[in-house]
Amino acid sequence: MDKNISKSVIRRLPRYYRFLEELLNEGIEKISSSQLAERMRSTASQIRQDLNCFGGFGQQGYGYNVAELRAEIGAILNLDRERSVILIGAGNLGRAIASHIDFSQYGCRLVGIFDRDESLLGQSIAGLKICSTNVLGGFCLENKPEMAVLCIPRESAEDTVKLLTDHGVNVFWNFSHYDIQGEFPNATVENVHLTDSLMTLSYSMENKTQNT
Amino acid sequence: MDKNISKSVIRRLPRYYRFLEELLNEGIEKISSSQLAERMRSTASQIRQDLNCFGGFGQQGYGYNVAELRAEIGAILNLDRERSVILIGAGNLGRAIASHIDFSQYGCRLVGIFDRDESLLGQSIAGLKICSTNVLGGFCLENKPEMAVLCIPRESAEDTVKLLTDHGVNVFWNFSHYDIQGEFPNATVENVHLTDSLMTLSYSMENKTQNT
Repeated sequence: MDKNISKSVIRRLPRYYRFLEELLNEGIEKISSSQLAERMRSTASQIRQDLNCFGGFGQQGYGYNVAELRAEIGAILNLDRERSVILIGAGNLGRAIASHIDFSQYGCRLVGIFDRDESLLGQSIAGLKICSTNVLGGFCLENKPEMAVLCIPRESAEDTVKLLTDHGVNVFWNFSHYDIQGEFPNATVENVHLTDSLMTLSYSMENKTQNT
Repeated sequence: MDKNISKSVIRRLPRYYRFLEELLNEGIEKISSSQLAERMRSTASQIRQDLNCFGGFGQQGYGYNVAELRAEIGAILNLDRERSVILIGAGNLGRAIASHIDFSQYGCRLVGIFDRDESLLGQSIAGLKICSTNVLGGFCLENKPEMAVLCIPRESAEDTVKLLTDHGVNVFWNFSHYDIQGEFPNATVENVHLTDSLMTLSYSMENKTQNT
């Protein structure tokens, strides 16, 4: 597969994947680039351009096979494998992420949930017992999780990230405001700054820019 | 205030605001553009350029007054006013958003939480009783909330958005995968697609692009 896909195209892939999944759920087997463009509020040429990066599945006069295209994009996004994931921080947000996100749909298997609050230990979320962060290091050495979801406050994030990287975990879905890559430049990080999004909305609702 | 601030600058403002807040919490009263740049992993010239959009508070040889700059950026982001906000969907995610986000820090006051699940009615989250979506329209007419946080499934989002726009709510912090602006082009929307972020991480952990 073409490894030189531009980052902007990659950033659009999850959205393609979502829309194709919707089409599948609606029982739609094929779709033209212009139909897909209308649905995604994009342009047919943009879509053809993007999808040609992966060898372009479209056939003249037929359009795209929805199931094939979805599977191919899923493979590019590595959703077709199973990596084990741990979640740190079983507060409101951590519980919601563990229960709300169907990790298995995204090539992830949630294998451990950790919190330093002793009063939570033994409680279960998403079928997993909350464990103490005291045993986190040992758990990582034994189970070699590939990704950690951080639902902890900024203050405790640095120590946690150091512990995790020391124990071989180097990929972070980071909901904290701690700037992981400032301290750990080799980490692979996706930040979710919910309040940045709220602030952007706060701006745009008064200034009529659009944020999609 | 300059209304012609570029969207890319606006997108960076929440991050500036966060870092300035950290500095304040650390008791730092002034900072040079180069110090701020190092901390934010940006460049001094980028920062000077961005902040000059608002009349540039920096003084040669002094740097920026942290409290002033934070207040000014907060004002640009409209965090210094109070708008009432309702939250629709009291499932795992809705509960987490209601409890985890300190809306008051962002010019928002959470005034109502609604769910269609009768079994949740009367339960309290963040000091608010969960109400039935049956009374949502009336509530909006009476209380005129300015923003709605959508923590509902895609399937129920369209009807809910229609009801809300019909009752004067036109600003959405949208956690559902429903494409509001496709149907309601005049709505002001900030989308949070958590699973897009997870899929992007899934890609980048195998392909070593960085996502910050």
